[in-house]
Formats: sequence, C-alpha cells, structure tokens
Amino acid sequence: MAKQKLIKGNAVIGQSGGPTAVINQSLVGVVEALRDIAPVKKILGMRHGVSGLTTGDVVNLGKVKADKLKVIAGTPSAALGSSRDKPDAEYCARILEQCRTLDIRYFFYIGGNDSSDTCRIVSELADQSAYDMRCFHVPKTVDNDLMGSDHTPGFPSAARFVATAFMGDNLDNASLPGIKINVVMGRHAGFLTAASALARRNENDGPHLIYLPEVPFETDRFIADVQAVYDRLGRCQIAVSEGVQDARGRAITTTLVESLDRDAHGNVQLSGTGALGDALSNLVKAKVKTASGKTPRVRADTFGYLQRCWPDASPVDAKEARGAGKFAVRCAARGDRSGSIAITRVSDKPYKSSFKRIELTDVAAKTRHMPPEFIEGHSDVTAAFIKYCRPLVGDLPEMATL
Amino acid sequence: MAKQKLIKGNAVIGQSGGPTAVINQSLVGVVEALRDIAPVKKILGMRHGVSGLTTGDVVNLGKVKADKLKVIAGTPSAALGSSRDKPDAEYCARILEQCRTLDIRYFFYIGGNDSSDTCRIVSELADQSAYDMRCFHVPKTVDNDLMGSDHTPGFPSAARFVATAFMGDNLDNASLPGIKINVVMGRHAGFLTAASALARRNENDGPHLIYLPEVPFETDRFIADVQAVYDRLGRCQIAVSEGVQDARGRAITTTLVESLDRDAHGNVQLSGTGALGDALSNLVKAKVKTASGKTPRVRADTFGYLQRCWPDASPVDAKEARGAGKFAVRCAARGDRSGSIAITRVSDKPYKSSFKRIELTDVAAKTRHMPPEFIEGHSDVTAAFIKYCRPLVGDLPEMATL
Repeated sequence: MAKQKLIKGNAVIGQSGGPTAVINQSLVGVVEALRDIAPVKKILGMRHGVSGLTTGDVVNLGKVKADKLKVIAGTPSAALGSSRDKPDAEYCARILEQCRTLDIRYFFYIGGNDSSDTCRIVSELADQSAYDMRCFHVPKTVDNDLMGSDHTPGFPSAARFVATAFMGDNLDNASLPGIKINVVMGRHAGFLTAASALARRNENDGPHLIYLPEVPFETDRFIADVQAVYDRLGRCQIAVSEGVQDARGRAITTTLVESLDRDAHGNVQLSGTGALGDALSNLVKAKVKTASGKTPRVRADTFGYLQRCWPDASPVDAKEARGAGKFAVRCAARGDRSGSIAITRVSDKPYKSSFKRIELTDVAAKTRHMPPEFIEGHSDVTAAFIKYCRPLVGDLPEMATL
Repeated sequence: MAKQKLIKGNAVIGQSGGPTAVINQSLVGVVEALRDIAPVKKILGMRHGVSGLTTGDVVNLGKVKADKLKVIAGTPSAALGSSRDKPDAEYCARILEQCRTLDIRYFFYIGGNDSSDTCRIVSELADQSAYDMRCFHVPKTVDNDLMGSDHTPGFPSAARFVATAFMGDNLDNASLPGIKINVVMGRHAGFLTAASALARRNENDGPHLIYLPEVPFETDRFIADVQAVYDRLGRCQIAVSEGVQDARGRAITTTLVESLDRDAHGNVQLSGTGALGDALSNLVKAKVKTASGKTPRVRADTFGYLQRCWPDASPVDAKEARGAGKFAVRCAARGDRSGSIAITRVSDKPYKSSFKRIELTDVAAKTRHMPPEFIEGHSDVTAAFIKYCRPLVGDLPEMATL
C-alpha cells in the first residue's frame, strides 16, 4: 500500500473479543507511542470496542498519568471494556461515520481475527471514500490462532497458567490417584491445550493424554487410551480442548451433551460451562474399570475464564504485547496506511523476537491451527512443540517429589 | 494427660485427605524437628496415609537431603501421597499393630478432622494396650473447618487463590458484562467462598453476591438478588459455595441436579464436576432478564482442584504450616502424649500468631462453621470477616481500572 504523509487529527483505540492477561499492555503500548507523534491531537479510547465508538462512548486517554498507565498495563482484562460485536459492512460504515465526526485519523483495534476483519472493512471503506485514516490491528488471543505470526500476544500468559495448573494438578492426582480430566480453552486451535505438556518434568508426570481439536476425537479410542494409562500407572491426567470434534467436524460437546447454548455469533457455548468435562467424566465412569472391575475415581475440572484473566503474565508476553502496540503506532507514523502486527521469532536461545507489519487481509477472519509437526499421534504433542512453546511462558515453579 | 519421658524408637508421618499448597510444609516441619530428637531412630513416611502404613508401604525420610526437603516444602500436594480412608476401630487396631511391628513410638498425621479422629482412636487403643506411643495430629484443610484454631494451615493459600481469581474474573466480567457464577470449594463451611470478598477494591467490584453453606439458599431469593444487581450494574459476579443447601439441609446440588455421584464416605461429589454451576447458570438464564426482556449472558466456572494445588502459597500459610509440624514434634519431645496443634492469633497489625496443643477430642470429627459475626444478611460477609481473613493471604496483585 502507498505510504502517505501524516495528517493532523485524533486517534482512537479499542479492545475487542475475549480479554487476556496482557491486552492492556498493548493498550498502554499504543497510548505511550501515540504521545510521541506530533500530528496526533486527542487520544481517545472506545468503551467496549466499536460498540462504544458508534454510540459516542469514548474516553480521553491522553491525560492518564504515566504511573497509572503502568499499573493498568499489568492489569489483566480489557481496561476499556471489550465487545463481542462482529461488524458487517453497514456497521463498519457507522464506525467510519463516527470516525469522521470525531476527526479520527488513527484507528487502532486490539483483538483477534474478527477484530482484524473489522479493521479491514473500516480501512477499505475509508479508502473508498478517500477519508485519510490509518487503520491498525494489534493482535491478541489466548487461542494463538492468528495467521502470519510465530505466536500471538495473550497466548504465552494463558499457556503459563495452563502449564502451572497441570503441574499442581498432576501432583494432586498422584497423591489421591484417579482419573482427572482438565478441559482447556481453544475452540478451533489446540495450542493452549498442548501447552499442558510443559507441565511434565519426570517420567510418568501428567498430562498423560492430550486431545486437540485438530485430531478427530473418537470416543472408543479415548476410553481405550484412558484404560491403558490407568492400568499402567493407577492414575491418569488428561488435557482436553473444549473444541475437540469428531471426524465429521461435530463438536464432542454437541454429540455428548444435549443442552446447548449459542452465543451471538451462533457459536455453541464452550467456555463457562462444565458440560464437556462432566460428559467425558460420566463416559469414563461407565467404561473404564479398576483391576478389580470397579469404577475408578473420576473428576473433571474446566479451567474456564481464569485461563485468560489470571494476573501472572508471562514476562515475554507482557513485553511483546506492549511492543506490538508501540510497533503499530510506529508503522502508522512511518506512513503505512493499514496493517496488522506479527511476531517473528529471531532465536530460541536466548529467546528473541521482532515485529513486522503484515496486511490486514493476511490475518482477517482466518484461523491458524496446530501444524502437523506439533502433533504426536492422536493424543500427544511433539518435542518440536515443547521447543516452540517453552521459551514463551517464562519460569515455571520449582517442584520436587519424594 | 500425663507427661512421660521419651522412649527410644521410630517415628512415622502421614498425610491424609485433600492435599493443600502447604501440606508438605508441615511434613518437612515434622521431619526437620524429628532430626533433632535423640531418641528418635528412623523417620518413616506412610505412602498414602494409613492405607500405606497398614500394608507396610513406608519410605525412609531420614536421609532426604536438606536442599531437597526445602523444595518439597514449597511443592503443593501431598509428597507422601494421601488417602481418603476413614478408619474405624478395627482399621485403627491394624494401624497400631503395624506401629508395634515397626517399633513406631512417634506417630504424626497431617490432615483434617477425619485424620484427627484417626489419631484419637489410635492413641486411645495404644493407651488401652499400654503401648507407649506419642500420637499427634497436624492440622490441614482448605475448608478452615477445624475447631479450636483461629484458622487452619491450607486455608490461607486457598483463600489467596480464590481472592486472586475473583479479582481477575471481576475485571473480565466488567469488560464483557454478564452474569458470572463462580463455584468455590467448601462442603460445610463457607470460609473459602467468603474469601472471595477480599477481591473487592473499588465500589461496584465483585463479588456482588456471596452464598455460603451456613445460610439457607432460597432459589427465588437468589434469582431476585441476581436480577437486582444486574439491573443496577448491567453485570453480576457471584460466589457460590459448592456446599450451599436449602433450609432443610439438602444440598442445592442434589435438589437442582439429578445425576449424582457419591464418594467412599457416602458424600455427594461436589468437587470435580461443573454440575452446580451449570444448574445455577440454567436457572439464571431461565429467570433473569435484561432491560429489554432478553436472556442475559450467563457463564459459570467451577474453580475445582486448582484451589488446593495452585503453587503460590500465602507466605503466612507456608510459615505456619511448617511451624505447626515443628510444634507437634516439640510437644511430643517435651513429653505430651497426644494432641492436635491449634493456631492462636496474637495480633492483627502486624499479624502474629502462636501455636498451642489442644486435645484430640477437641478437634476430632467436629466441624467449624462461619460464625454469625462473619455473615452479613443472606448474601455477603461482614467487615469483621475481611479483617480476619486479610492478613492471612499475603499481598494480592495490584490492579487499576480506567
């Protein structure tokens, strides 16, 4: 796209989709960087994303003091409020209209692939009507399912939570042996569920089985897997993605559970319910047996929203999320008209990454999945995945066994 | 009880019941202190509590190196393995028999009120047969439901997890407003659910409603409560104890949920299932309405086992759990024949506590509940509870909102 000189006007920033532990790092990164750009007059924040923008519910971020910004950056969840709206062309036209009204010339939207699509439509509408406005998407998602990046801000912190949770829970399961099912977030991509493998330290540590949305889930095979581990170890810790599906692409939640709930996008509700865990738990209770033919102790936990709002961000994630926000402003300032920010891994040891601008069309409304080289058989991840994920999550707790 | 001079022989230590983040601190406290007691020869550990002891599954703890013990102390869950066995007199006779066989003269059992009852029976049987053995119970429970103590080791760390979780989740709920139900552990006592109140920093912070097992749960009143908060704030974050019950003492889980599971003690399974959260969620979806008469966004999380195995112990808890183990050995060494260890609060600012020996009969098989002065109305806790709980959990994360 053609580079253009900077125009005087206001900037607006919004946050969208499921919050993360570091989405406010990106917000603060954008705000801090914008303060250094002379043509930018007001720095406005959308309350609850584009839904607040279109109704004029914006706040002035220009005057928030640096020490407060610092604490906000370290606070999980979306400080501006978030939104689940998925704007169509008509909605985006209203967004653009409001941008004109507010003299917005710099538009930053922090979110997942739906949010990058909003940026794309708004940017195209602005181009078509020759309204000079920079449109940038700053990536965020615990699912790690955005295209074009080594990984996405938000994922490392959620992966840190999942790995830590599996470490503690593995010892809990070892001390009171039984079958433990932990359901992990991730509607289409298994990265977060796969991160449970980072919990392993010693032989026989859990998770012993890992089920990803990328691998068709077969109920009979699942039962056989669990029985085999239970026979061998007298216990079994299992990581299951909330998005596991059968070979025909039907969510196991829908095939095992009758009562369903769909969100505004028509998606089946996977988070905020223990339904999948309980259904799998009932299945295991019915089919898996102890050596003496009894029903084993079976428990299921659904990690739920704590995965995305736990206030202990990965240091790498906090730094990169802040940096992605700053880099988006730098792209706008150097004259790029629109884009999304991608993370490139420069080296593993020591871990080092850099940012680059990619086109909005490279990321918008697309979904990235676990590549085959990260998947081992039908119930595990590879050493390549561990190598990929390990540097992202930071130091994990030290633990020892007798 | 009469004080007696120390006899030469071996010591054994076991861990029982649901593990905690600091139960290994108590284990290490006992081991460290025993190493200084000259008449104590071997220091043995029961694998999986009295179940391992009776089958001869014991390990030698005398030779575990100090640096390894240090890491084990900071590791959550029961390093020796735990047990859900609730021994009767016949079982306790077998325990005593095994103690004779192994020349055990010092018996330490770390656990809740069931474990203190095991200590009591074993101690009485030893007395009756004139077998000289010190029997000590070292308290542990995330439920904080042991009699005779200001609070119980294990509770402060679980309370720290719950308060931290509610802080993050409150912001998640504020950024994507809706009704959020969080189910917290605590079969009979509401202390852990009440600890959610520590998450409040600013006006309108959640939890907005807190339901304890000590206050009869009325479905209609619950719906009215939620509707009122939702009408006022456009959102509602709710803390519900897994043990909430109706005025007739029936668990709400049993009245709302059909499919049940009972453990070896005949207790209904409350943890390791999302059933209560999902049932309450369905109830709210059916009854609570938005201003425009629609069904609000409703989600439920059941915090589950992470509450007791999350590897970020409260510093006060870690110190006290270690100290309780050491104090039990000190009691045995000074000639006390049996007992349990209680924590007394010496001062609030600065927080200071001390230990005392109490009789096993003071704590055995009894349950402590939230006292009336900690309960505010039917859906909140008092300032007195906050004052009680606040010093126990350690520093909570700093968070800020715009």
